[in-house]
Amino acid sequence: MSGPSVLWMLGSDSDLPHIEGGLAALRELDISYEVRIHSAHRTPQQAVDLVAGARDAGVKVLIGVAGGAAHLPGVMAAHTTLPVIGVPVPSDLSGGLDSLLSISQMPSGVPVATMGANKAGGKNAALLAARIIGVSDPTVAGALQQYREGMAEGVLRKDAAVRAEHRFPAD
Amino acid sequence: MSGPSVLWMLGSDSDLPHIEGGLAALRELDISYEVRIHSAHRTPQQAVDLVAGARDAGVKVLIGVAGGAAHLPGVMAAHTTLPVIGVPVPSDLSGGLDSLLSISQMPSGVPVATMGANKAGGKNAALLAARIIGVSDPTVAGALQQYREGMAEGVLRKDAAVRAEHRFPAD
Amino acid sequence: MSGPSVLWMLGSDSDLPHIEGGLAALRELDISYEVRIHSAHRTPQQAVDLVAGARDAGVKVLIGVAGGAAHLPGVMAAHTTLPVIGVPVPSDLSGGLDSLLSISQMPSGVPVATMGANKAGGKNAALLAARIIGVSDPTVAGALQQYREGMAEGVLRKDAAVRAEHRFPAD
Amino acid sequence: MSGPSVLWMLGSDSDLPHIEGGLAALRELDISYEVRIHSAHRTPQQAVDLVAGARDAGVKVLIGVAGGAAHLPGVMAAHTTLPVIGVPVPSDLSGGLDSLLSISQMPSGVPVATMGANKAGGKNAALLAARIIGVSDPTVAGALQQYREGMAEGVLRKDAAVRAEHRFPAD
Amino acid sequence: MSGPSVLWMLGSDSDLPHIEGGLAALRELDISYEVRIHSAHRTPQQAVDLVAGARDAGVKVLIGVAGGAAHLPGVMAAHTTLPVIGVPVPSDLSGGLDSLLSISQMPSGVPVATMGANKAGGKNAALLAARIIGVSDPTVAGALQQYREGMAEGVLRKDAAVRAEHRFPAD
Amino acid sequence: MSGPSVLWMLGSDSDLPHIEGGLAALRELDISYEVRIHSAHRTPQQAVDLVAGARDAGVKVLIGVAGGAAHLPGVMAAHTTLPVIGVPVPSDLSGGLDSLLSISQMPSGVPVATMGANKAGGKNAALLAARIIGVSDPTVAGALQQYREGMAEGVLRKDAAVRAEHRFPAD
Amino acid sequence: MSGPSVLWMLGSDSDLPHIEGGLAALRELDISYEVRIHSAHRTPQQAVDLVAGARDAGVKVLIGVAGGAAHLPGVMAAHTTLPVIGVPVPSDLSGGLDSLLSISQMPSGVPVATMGANKAGGKNAALLAARIIGVSDPTVAGALQQYREGMAEGVLRKDAAVRAEHRFPAD
Amino acid sequence: MSGPSVLWMLGSDSDLPHIEGGLAALRELDISYEVRIHSAHRTPQQAVDLVAGARDAGVKVLIGVAGGAAHLPGVMAAHTTLPVIGVPVPSDLSGGLDSLLSISQMPSGVPVATMGANKAGGKNAALLAARIIGVSDPTVAGALQQYREGMAEGVLRKDAAVRAEHRFPAD
Repeated sequence: MSGPSVLWMLGSDSDLPHIEGGLAALRELDISYEVRIHSAHRTPQQAVDLVAGARDAGVKVLIGVAGGAAHLPGVMAAHTTLPVIGVPVPSDLSGGLDSLLSISQMPSGVPVATMGANKAGGKNAALLAARIIGVSDPTVAGALQQYREGMAEGVLRKDAAVRAEHRFPAD
Repeated sequence: MSGPSVLWMLGSDSDLPHIEGGLAALRELDISYEVRIHSAHRTPQQAVDLVAGARDAGVKVLIGVAGGAAHLPGVMAAHTTLPVIGVPVPSDLSGGLDSLLSISQMPSGVPVATMGANKAGGKNAALLAARIIGVSDPTVAGALQQYREGMAEGVLRKDAAVRAEHRFPAD
Repeated sequence: MSGPSVLWMLGSDSDLPHIEGGLAALRELDISYEVRIHSAHRTPQQAVDLVAGARDAGVKVLIGVAGGAAHLPGVMAAHTTLPVIGVPVPSDLSGGLDSLLSISQMPSGVPVATMGANKAGGKNAALLAARIIGVSDPTVAGALQQYREGMAEGVLRKDAAVRAEHRFPAD
Repeated sequence: MSGPSVLWMLGSDSDLPHIEGGLAALRELDISYEVRIHSAHRTPQQAVDLVAGARDAGVKVLIGVAGGAAHLPGVMAAHTTLPVIGVPVPSDLSGGLDSLLSISQMPSGVPVATMGANKAGGKNAALLAARIIGVSDPTVAGALQQYREGMAEGVLRKDAAVRAEHRFPAD
Repeated sequence: MSGPSVLWMLGSDSDLPHIEGGLAALRELDISYEVRIHSAHRTPQQAVDLVAGARDAGVKVLIGVAGGAAHLPGVMAAHTTLPVIGVPVPSDLSGGLDSLLSISQMPSGVPVATMGANKAGGKNAALLAARIIGVSDPTVAGALQQYREGMAEGVLRKDAAVRAEHRFPAD
Repeated sequence: MSGPSVLWMLGSDSDLPHIEGGLAALRELDISYEVRIHSAHRTPQQAVDLVAGARDAGVKVLIGVAGGAAHLPGVMAAHTTLPVIGVPVPSDLSGGLDSLLSISQMPSGVPVATMGANKAGGKNAALLAARIIGVSDPTVAGALQQYREGMAEGVLRKDAAVRAEHRFPAD
Repeated sequence: MSGPSVLWMLGSDSDLPHIEGGLAALRELDISYEVRIHSAHRTPQQAVDLVAGARDAGVKVLIGVAGGAAHLPGVMAAHTTLPVIGVPVPSDLSGGLDSLLSISQMPSGVPVATMGANKAGGKNAALLAARIIGVSDPTVAGALQQYREGMAEGVLRKDAAVRAEHRFPAD
Repeated sequence: MSGPSVLWMLGSDSDLPHIEGGLAALRELDISYEVRIHSAHRTPQQAVDLVAGARDAGVKVLIGVAGGAAHLPGVMAAHTTLPVIGVPVPSDLSGGLDSLLSISQMPSGVPVATMGANKAGGKNAALLAARIIGVSDPTVAGALQQYREGMAEGVLRKDAAVRAEHRFPAD
């Protein structure tokens, strides 16, 4: 079969902007993905069917994205033995504390790899998926190493610029 | 058909003590019930099947009891048009803030009637179920009215006892 | 008598926008309602009188909407044996944590069916009222079933649109 | 008339230990009081009647003591123009955050003088009541001044004891 | 002497808008006041001197207004036996949870009458001050009674308007 | 090379009891592991060296266990491209909210797969590690499938026992 | 050697506005500083090297500025015996509760001098650095004394202006 | 003059156990200290006098220890230009969130070096005081370096013990 390596499932299409950075990261790392919209509460059966068939379809990592009583990642984790990453969408309740707790506080036996309730959650989900795939895929592992070095270089460039401007007394 | 009027579903049998007061209240109000143990994550299909068949089995109200990432009541609400009451079991995370938020913060379209994350949650779920049944059942409505008067009398008795003891200067 | 099936009580008319979606849902489900403005603190007697007379006026479900120290739903529940739904209006204190706790953490004996402190609270209150009425009213139960199927179809349409656009590599 | 100067109202007699220190303080300051048990939810009419008649009965300050969705002080404040002090009883939800928010976050027009959600709440309510009475009663004001000096002396005694024991190097 | 009845102390003049409604309420109730800017941390001695001399200057109630680590009301309460009201200014930390806790969680012996961390805090502080003055001043008590009736009438007018517009089916 | 598949790093040996269930799960699934004690703050260089060399030593998944300002998992994630799982140890601050936020709220580019701040965190970390290994290892994937079925059977046994005991009226 | 007295390290150059007031305060107090951009996660080795060499370079105080899972100050404190000040950058999660807890809740042995998660954090870090330097530098101690007197004068000017405008009845 | 290098001030002698580890650390580092009991609210003038005279008495660092509305460290910082360390004593409100916020959220101009609201706070205050003294005192800086190495050795010993016991499969 030839499903994508990473299957994203969003509770609502209004959460798409939250994962844009993550989709870009996967493209940069050349990892295939597909994005689906399914709700643990409004289309539960379709969500479950998709998850239950994911391994056979060649999927390696699942990512559930949801806010508030964010049950989607946990429900996904209940129907597969593949790793499931949960992305808590920031909300108006303490900035997403509800989303974070609803995803992270899973009972024994059904883990969800929870990301932060912040702007970085979508991209970090993609990078964690890549790390997971890279456990057995040296190409992806190598791409991640390069990605990391690129990040470091970006910081060093900013450091050089800031350092020159923000010292007292100036040289 | 002859299912119970109230179907309780608990994520874990360790939560049974939390609903004892509620079971007693239902017996006092002469409302039939059954308690089942099913997890939204460990036996999701069985949980869903039970809920989906509840209306045809004569169930009128469903009660889901869970703690932490307490997905059970929400998952139940997704599979029926009967009213679903959610009971957040107190936890170690702020005393159950995770349970409360995971149950209450449902998305649009799938309501869960959330009880408090406190010792009263189990009994109040039973009393809300009775109120719901009492909308169309005058016997239950009458029993509730009596129950309420009994509560008031209990308070008045305590008031009389305390009042006599706790005044200054004493008579 | 001929009161509405659902009686909304708002602590302030500034909360009207928060329940618009709920009013629309009730109209769509053809369930009668009336909206009243009364405060547990500024017009307590009028609020209590209205609630106490609700059952005789034919009301089946009461909905209290309030924010902050949101006492209205609890005060309503104290004066009727009908089911009372509480809608916590989001606030500036953690996005409505005060509203949520003030409504949900009721003492033993006086349940309030609490909705989320989020944008969905008003609509979900309406849908829970419909579920409650639908326990004994097959027409409403049927309308709810259709409403739910409509929601699922909406999700499936979005899924199809998103899926076509967000896959990598593209077909 | 000859009512007490301070009228305590407790939502439950289980909260009596929380106010023991406060009752002792009032006796020490020679201020009359009475303790009543009434619930905003279980005996609302009795609670309201007592509050509404308090000024005519000679009461000067009302104190409401409650936990969780602690509506009692707010309901009391709605039925009198006397000052109402609210004492949030510590709970299992973050140690009483629910009690504190339910009492403090009152809407415009109906103030409740909120004490801390801690062990000091009961005694501080008594001392605030004394300060209020002392605005127009020089005897109480004088007694408060003495009370305060006694407190300071207690601290100074402890300071002397600790200082001698906890220095390094020792003399 | 002829000081004002109510002495407001603000930690910063940027908090003036937060108390505007309170100042208006005092003028409406014909209660004299003065507003001072002093910080528990930046001008501690001046703040303390003002508070310590307040009773002799004829002040009856003190109001401290501050945000964040809002020490001002507590420091004021430490230097007088007059009642001190604390107004927590909303902040960016959970909407003012820091302000609320810093003011309310006072140790035994030094009470602060804490208002809500919300928009109503400033006005409610004024109304509580009026209630305190009204304990021994029948004119103020009468004005408060009128104020309260005015509030109720305002709600009733809104109720009539909303009720006519928001019912289904319309008459 | 012959390092363990899973490398646990604990900030303190006092956290060992928190992961006992996780170690047992790995043994049950026949996955090799090693437990190390290193602190991001007290032995930072040793921690970093161990992590940096993990991939070459054959490690597939890293698990960091820490409480409070729980920097360990994030520091580990900074020094490898392997997947890092973070286990927040419950603490006295809201039951571990500090641990949870310190681990989950990572910046863009450095993901940590966060578990719940609850009793299940240690075991779920082990099971997530197994899911990650099982992406490319069919034996582990099969063992996980069996583990999951065993969990379901445990629930079903409890359901049968509870159901027989907790119904009203009894048969 | 001739390094700056105060070395700022920011996790991201987007946090520069947060410390502007602090940089200005140091210039006003004539204390030398340098600002560097380094991330505990993206350039960990560079961050560590800079910190480890700081004392020999003549640095007296280090300031780490970070938000979210703000590990930077703690990591800095692990690599030096100089005092490290942590500045939690406000975030969307409760306004920076994550930043505050990640910085303050350090384990035994590795202290971080934590500032508030508010607008004042950057300036207060600078002033604390000055206080630390002033322990052994009378010139800085004197400048701080003047700074403090200037603050007090600013408050007194505002007090005079507000007092004249906000009294009732007006003179 | 010959005051101690470190002056501890506790709001209550019941907090003494919380700083025992800190006192021991100072003795180990051979730094002189004195412990005083003074309350920002009960003996404010004595607290202020002690702080205001501290620099002239030879004190280099002040440490304020308090819980709840923990105003003491902030009040201390208002009366000196010496560095002030604040130790939030854990409380029942979320484990000390009130103490932490009351100490950390200081306004601009008056910094308090806040420790964690955890068991480590007392010892870390001592170690931060030592770091501050060590800025200009090479003996203390050297002692700190040794202290730190001792900590690392302790971790390494535990690592060796744990590592030998907790691996699978065993050698």
